[in-house]
Amino acid sequence: MKRRKKERQSILQETLASNPFMTDEELAKRFSVSIQTIRLDRMELAIPELRERIKDVAKQQLDDVRALQPDEVIGEIVDLQLDERAISILDIQSEHVFTRSGIARGHHLFAQANSLAVAIIDDPLALTQSATIRFTRQVKAEERVIAKARVIANELDRTHVEVDSFVEQELVFSGEFVMYRNNDVPVTK
Amino acid sequence: MKRRKKERQSILQETLASNPFMTDEELAKRFSVSIQTIRLDRMELAIPELRERIKDVAKQQLDDVRALQPDEVIGEIVDLQLDERAISILDIQSEHVFTRSGIARGHHLFAQANSLAVAIIDDPLALTQSATIRFTRQVKAEERVIAKARVIANELDRTHVEVDSFVEQELVFSGEFVMYRNNDVPVTK
Repeated sequence: MKRRKKERQSILQETLASNPFMTDEELAKRFSVSIQTIRLDRMELAIPELRERIKDVAKQQLDDVRALQPDEVIGEIVDLQLDERAISILDIQSEHVFTRSGIARGHHLFAQANSLAVAIIDDPLALTQSATIRFTRQVKAEERVIAKARVIANELDRTHVEVDSFVEQELVFSGEFVMYRNNDVPVTK
Repeated sequence: MKRRKKERQSILQETLASNPFMTDEELAKRFSVSIQTIRLDRMELAIPELRERIKDVAKQQLDDVRALQPDEVIGEIVDLQLDERAISILDIQSEHVFTRSGIARGHHLFAQANSLAVAIIDDPLALTQSATIRFTRQVKAEERVIAKARVIANELDRTHVEVDSFVEQELVFSGEFVMYRNNDVPVTK
């Protein structure tokens, strides 16, 4: 439904306050306007672009990954507080989907979540021991998957990491990973 | 330990009878001889090369995959009986491992197992609903992973597939996948 500019900008501001991860494309679709209109709205409202918004939300907390090379992470890490929480973004492209159904292949969502579970570990070595995962909604090409990981338990040389992945605000994947780490969890953490 | 040719060929025959998936490289290592020696032994004993041996074991049972394009399978399918069992081979290359540790990344073993769990389904659409997986031994580059899948339960539009992956005869990965299929399980199967 089309709205008048003032009304649209007001709702846009509220929408982005509650869900800063929405892309211009998603906003354009929601408001039935062009992407260019959304960009102009953002400029007028002085709302920064997506990646900047995410960094704002993440409060500039972006530790260096330790357990793997940064380019080995599947997706882009936008928030990382080692041994606590992490967020990554993966844009689903045509090469990630089944040719026939256009549905994203499970192992790409798994790879994003699993590499985030490795990256969250504050240790030079982290290996996945086991995982229980669930695919809760099909993901299509052009969709943006936001994976959010957090450490939920530590026990000696094992760390339990929970990862929930969303498209817009809808849960598409969830998993609990048990990670083996080289060194015991530091007592100070 | 080096053995005399006759003794070696006798043990080679027994070894391959119990484990037809061993490569010439693995046999050479086990018998402390060159790969060329193993090849000559095989020729003298009229034992075919690995892929042929696997096809023999699989009793020429190689159905066409239905739930995805054949080139979408991760690994090479060497045995497939739809809705019953399947086997695939994945040779771990340097691009599959973590740069630092040389250990194969979990999502590649997951992708091999998951795509085999999709391929085993006798239905044009099969999607992974959930999985419980375990990495039981680290896998390195140059190792060959044999994944063996079998259908363990059917319930209306869900099929449970168990996948065990081995390097030589050692279990490196195991998983249980719950697969959603488009159509109910045929009653005749």
